[in-house]
Amino acid sequence: MSVKITGVGSYIPTEIEKNDAFHNHHFLNADGSSINNPNTVIVEKFEEITGIKERRYAKPEFNTSDISFFAAEKAIENAGIDREDLDYIILAHNFGDVTINTVQSDMVPCLAARVKHSLRIKNPKCVAYDLLFGCPGWIEGVVQANAFIKAGLAKKCLVIGSEMLSRVIDKHDRDSMIFSDGAGATVIEASTDEDSGILAHETASFTYDEAYFLNFGKSNNKHLTEDTRYIKMNGRKIYEFALNEVPKAMKACLEKSGEHIDDLKKIIIHQANEKMDEAITKRFYRLYKKQVPESVMPMSIHKLGNSSVATIPTLYDLILQNELDGHQLNKGDIVMFASVGAGMHINAMVYKV
Amino acid sequence: MSVKITGVGSYIPTEIEKNDAFHNHHFLNADGSSINNPNTVIVEKFEEITGIKERRYAKPEFNTSDISFFAAEKAIENAGIDREDLDYIILAHNFGDVTINTVQSDMVPCLAARVKHSLRIKNPKCVAYDLLFGCPGWIEGVVQANAFIKAGLAKKCLVIGSEMLSRVIDKHDRDSMIFSDGAGATVIEASTDEDSGILAHETASFTYDEAYFLNFGKSNNKHLTEDTRYIKMNGRKIYEFALNEVPKAMKACLEKSGEHIDDLKKIIIHQANEKMDEAITKRFYRLYKKQVPESVMPMSIHKLGNSSVATIPTLYDLILQNELDGHQLNKGDIVMFASVGAGMHINAMVYKV
Repeated sequence: MSVKITGVGSYIPTEIEKNDAFHNHHFLNADGSSINNPNTVIVEKFEEITGIKERRYAKPEFNTSDISFFAAEKAIENAGIDREDLDYIILAHNFGDVTINTVQSDMVPCLAARVKHSLRIKNPKCVAYDLLFGCPGWIEGVVQANAFIKAGLAKKCLVIGSEMLSRVIDKHDRDSMIFSDGAGATVIEASTDEDSGILAHETASFTYDEAYFLNFGKSNNKHLTEDTRYIKMNGRKIYEFALNEVPKAMKACLEKSGEHIDDLKKIIIHQANEKMDEAITKRFYRLYKKQVPESVMPMSIHKLGNSSVATIPTLYDLILQNELDGHQLNKGDIVMFASVGAGMHINAMVYKV
Repeated sequence: MSVKITGVGSYIPTEIEKNDAFHNHHFLNADGSSINNPNTVIVEKFEEITGIKERRYAKPEFNTSDISFFAAEKAIENAGIDREDLDYIILAHNFGDVTINTVQSDMVPCLAARVKHSLRIKNPKCVAYDLLFGCPGWIEGVVQANAFIKAGLAKKCLVIGSEMLSRVIDKHDRDSMIFSDGAGATVIEASTDEDSGILAHETASFTYDEAYFLNFGKSNNKHLTEDTRYIKMNGRKIYEFALNEVPKAMKACLEKSGEHIDDLKKIIIHQANEKMDEAITKRFYRLYKKQVPESVMPMSIHKLGNSSVATIPTLYDLILQNELDGHQLNKGDIVMFASVGAGMHINAMVYKV
């Protein structure tokens, strides 16, 4: 028995927020002090490092559970399964439903239950739960689905990664330009096709020193109420941490899979920062004393920003739908998924298409 | 191989909120209208139905992740394991960390990562994630730990159920009197002792009509801001639903286990409402044409209220520590855990001590 991704679907919000939309923001340093550069320079520098030119924000009337549902419908259709046959709906997110212009997270009932409700699934044996695991939540959901299938608890699982970071950003923080909204969904199934599927996976939680590198903190604008929190990151520390640890986890995963580095067709990595992703991939290949092969790392960050847990399934969907220029995947290709995020958690998975 | 609960610990908050503390509350109906009875009558009726005389609230300086950590320390000590050997920390909650007198849920990083940080565990291979599954979250965490052990992903898991409902209650809603705070933790381990451990489990998610029976809704006081939400329940519908579905799930689970109804020593059921729990147990035994045996159902609700996902592990801990009069468990005894809550989710587990 193998465990395969048999269906993929994503929801990319229709509202485009271009970088020049930030030209009139009042950015401040973390300590509340002014930034000496004009916004045009701040935005230009930002684009240079992260690669982000625009990002997507969900429409005001939608919530995270809504866009999860949109992606789920597509993945189910793509897999061609009867939705009543699903044994699990696993929804990875980090902030619940945050209605626009409010600050509370709503996750009772859990978002997976809301999606199951919207999908009009009647079968009570389809267990719907939410998983909080930072940006690596979708990969971890697939790891869990894989374990349930192997333990005999499930045959078909829907794993969704969904996030609306536009609802939790501090407009006075330059890092707010990174974040975007999106949802990606996948159907994971037990299969008798032994020649494809999940070959290996690897997960690590670094919490001893790293737990609060990404957190929910106060605005850079000290005149705002201290009670309202926003997504905050210690960019420098995350960069160093990711460069040290992610390539090692990727190597451990590839070794477990038994596949050769030269046979890796694509590295589908969490889209947090283009320069960081390039540096991670470079270090990964350096562990094998190799150069990074051309077009091994598809990027969606330029147009989609960092949609957290939605990023990897959305990127994988774009490739499979031939919507990412220069990137195709065919039956038998080996890909690696890899992610890093709040926790700090890291995971990787080697998958044969 | 069997999978056993090898350590249990709980944290019962020290602040006691007695029923008479509600005598000066301004209770309103869900539509905002006045209640004709004086508070003394409201509180008396409430006690009669639910059995709750007092409940516990965490101290203002603590958050859900703090009390989770307190319970975790005890469970690890009780199990006598080296914390660095843990493969998973699974933390079930529903509202994240809500700092007192604020309304936001903070769950970035996830609470399991915070607990791992507080436990000073260095091992990055210990994967720390949060599970949102309503009140049945602790049982579901054990189901997941069991699956990870069976799939070869883990040998030792820490499963915590923790909640601070005092931070999300609507003071104008009579139902607010039900809710309390608490944390329960358990160490789940693979064992070569074949004669004990998890015998069977059963989970169901009812979302078609039931998804919003428990939700995050507006205050009964229509003069308060509509933007702030509180835990809300449709008590009548939940009561009917629980009475119809929970006994069936319990029966399905017992049948899977192969154990006889007469050999069931204790039913450790989610403590939501004494009358409801009695009615569920009565219906369960009626499915076997039996009377409910005396003292089969230990209750903690009178003094602890409904602490959601913390309730069952806390109750189990109290029994094992001989702190619940008239209730003991010995090696070889068969117990059933059963829960129902927001989702609406139901689960049950048959366990041999």
